[in-house]
Amino acid sequence: MKNSDYKVKADAKYLAKEILLRLKLMFPGHEGVMPLHSPVFHERSEELVIDCIRSTFVSSAGSCVTLFEEEVAKACDTEFCVSTVSGTAALQLAMRVSGVEPGHESLMPSLTFVATPNAASYLGAIPHFVDVDPQTLAMDPEVLRQHLMRCSTYRNGKLFNKKTNRQISSILAVHVFGHPADMRGLRAIADEFELRLIEDAAGALGTELEGRRVGSFGDLGVLSFNGNKLITTGGGGAIVTNSHDLADTARHLSTTAKKSHRWSFVHDQIGYNFRMPSLNAALGLSQIENLGDLLTAKRRIATHYHEYFKNFDEGSVLEQPKNSNSNYWLNNIVLDHSQGNICEKTIQELNYMGINARPIWTPMHYLEIYRNCPRTSLPITESIANKIISLPSSPYLSEYF
Amino acid sequence: MKNSDYKVKADAKYLAKEILLRLKLMFPGHEGVMPLHSPVFHERSEELVIDCIRSTFVSSAGSCVTLFEEEVAKACDTEFCVSTVSGTAALQLAMRVSGVEPGHESLMPSLTFVATPNAASYLGAIPHFVDVDPQTLAMDPEVLRQHLMRCSTYRNGKLFNKKTNRQISSILAVHVFGHPADMRGLRAIADEFELRLIEDAAGALGTELEGRRVGSFGDLGVLSFNGNKLITTGGGGAIVTNSHDLADTARHLSTTAKKSHRWSFVHDQIGYNFRMPSLNAALGLSQIENLGDLLTAKRRIATHYHEYFKNFDEGSVLEQPKNSNSNYWLNNIVLDHSQGNICEKTIQELNYMGINARPIWTPMHYLEIYRNCPRTSLPITESIANKIISLPSSPYLSEYF
Repeated sequence: MKNSDYKVKADAKYLAKEILLRLKLMFPGHEGVMPLHSPVFHERSEELVIDCIRSTFVSSAGSCVTLFEEEVAKACDTEFCVSTVSGTAALQLAMRVSGVEPGHESLMPSLTFVATPNAASYLGAIPHFVDVDPQTLAMDPEVLRQHLMRCSTYRNGKLFNKKTNRQISSILAVHVFGHPADMRGLRAIADEFELRLIEDAAGALGTELEGRRVGSFGDLGVLSFNGNKLITTGGGGAIVTNSHDLADTARHLSTTAKKSHRWSFVHDQIGYNFRMPSLNAALGLSQIENLGDLLTAKRRIATHYHEYFKNFDEGSVLEQPKNSNSNYWLNNIVLDHSQGNICEKTIQELNYMGINARPIWTPMHYLEIYRNCPRTSLPITESIANKIISLPSSPYLSEYF
Repeated sequence: MKNSDYKVKADAKYLAKEILLRLKLMFPGHEGVMPLHSPVFHERSEELVIDCIRSTFVSSAGSCVTLFEEEVAKACDTEFCVSTVSGTAALQLAMRVSGVEPGHESLMPSLTFVATPNAASYLGAIPHFVDVDPQTLAMDPEVLRQHLMRCSTYRNGKLFNKKTNRQISSILAVHVFGHPADMRGLRAIADEFELRLIEDAAGALGTELEGRRVGSFGDLGVLSFNGNKLITTGGGGAIVTNSHDLADTARHLSTTAKKSHRWSFVHDQIGYNFRMPSLNAALGLSQIENLGDLLTAKRRIATHYHEYFKNFDEGSVLEQPKNSNSNYWLNNIVLDHSQGNICEKTIQELNYMGINARPIWTPMHYLEIYRNCPRTSLPITESIANKIISLPSSPYLSEYF
């Protein structure tokens, strides 16, 4: 071990202790491991799930699915919602109904969960990575615009990547940690280049931008209800949209593209078995009733983080973008530097201490499977990826102060 | 309306009445609509699901998933089980781990649910349809063998379709209505032509062939736990196998191919988000404990059908194949003829009368999306498809006699 390694290890220990100290002060009386994000259930959750079981309609034919979809649409300021078995399925479905075809390229950040490029891959499309804005951690509209001006051209009214000769048909904007991307900027580019715009709002349910809920800015928005999200259905996801046609097509494709008939089996497209089961929707329904309270709790916790980390010397709490009201799904420290892999070492120390901290995702272009995808230069992505520590943000923590 | 149409309509009404009469005699005191197949839940279902919610581990990290997988493996006489969000997902995953690649052909019956060919399509593979045996309604090994002798050739030790020049890499055997395919025959062909053999046992949980449970004959077996199956998890499915390697790969791919690590995000393949949530596994766990009783109930109902339809003039109850002990998922009448679309018209009458009868699936090569797939001639498939009426088979019906 070199001297500098000892130094970083000592620094990591110091940083972890500084963070732990603040967490102890922030949430006095909290005992045991502090998870990154736990869901909250009430008696109502048990009631609705039992009602669902007693009805015997636990699969997608059950009534809870439609009720849950109505509530999700409302929560996203959209007219329609189509629920799915996962956020990944919702992403794939959103891209499919957006006209993403095999051999197309989809513009998206490299700084995202692997489900985003995977959804493109499932359709035979190729992710095309774009750098992010250091404030939002989401795709930088100006970088995207400059890149498209340079690398793309129109052929028969369609946008093509000049270098790969592949059609570019969609932009996938990802809202990171609940904070909104610059949707006004991205919408302008989508319109200018005639691209479909999809919002990957997996962790951003309830987040507002300029007074409007995210999910409603793109042609389609995508949500996740995985166990670590603000609201969970066990596993699940949804598409939200204001387009009647897109919603209809998504719903049709999500139910094996079976033509509506009481007993016959005619399927007019290669569809999916993606519809959320009623059992899961019942759980979701019990929680989304509570969305307002959950958002209040999450924002209180975020304010708390800001207060207690004001005097933190080695980094700062990630702020929500201007004109936004984030759901603060996860609270994060952005370290001032990333020398000696200090970020990962600090996360390791924190986990030893019972604090389930974690880094941001490994950028997609670092993974072997997406190494050769087309991309902009990615300086912000590469710099920020080694500086972020996500910290415990469960809604229940609001009861500790 | 032609005279012959009147005649068929009258015949359909007569047939429907004859069937209804028998059902009334078979299940005296049954009131209201008679569904095709309803699940059975007990207090234990509610208990386990509530325990799961109270644990807060409702997503795939929950403990119920592993417990459920152990029980499913046992129920299929296999060593391993990997649970998924749907039977469709399990099929796709089974084909993927079997080495089915884009451009390959997969041998399968045309007489199946659309999920079977769809799973191939998701992987960029092409279904290749083979005719069925009129006794099992499953792929006919002799037809398959003759066809492969004629249409295929080896190149560099791999099997190719001579006409399409595509590699043939797998056989998907489908167990229909719970009755087993001729797995001994199909296994011999898979071995002879060095093909992977996958069992689509979606509706055949608990079925035995030569004293062994289905799912254990192929390299991999696939189950469905959709709402209309013997055991339901709301929505869900599973892969079963005796291969440690195949199970490991399937589990890895089903959880986004994320390398095992407490917090870091490294994914070494294009994986899926397919793992069953714990909430659903809890429901499944409560039912699979009860599998023995359910199978007894199902077989009693099947015997009942055989007795009461002995003197039915226009067709006969579908028998289980020799050397088998079917779970009799669905009981079926095979009509003697299909003139004038009598089968569909009878199903229509039955549904008017509150009996949720339904036909077998529309053969896949009749669907526009699979019309141009390679195939054998399909005389049995085409003849049988218009003669089958599936009749109410819910386990609870055993309480009515």
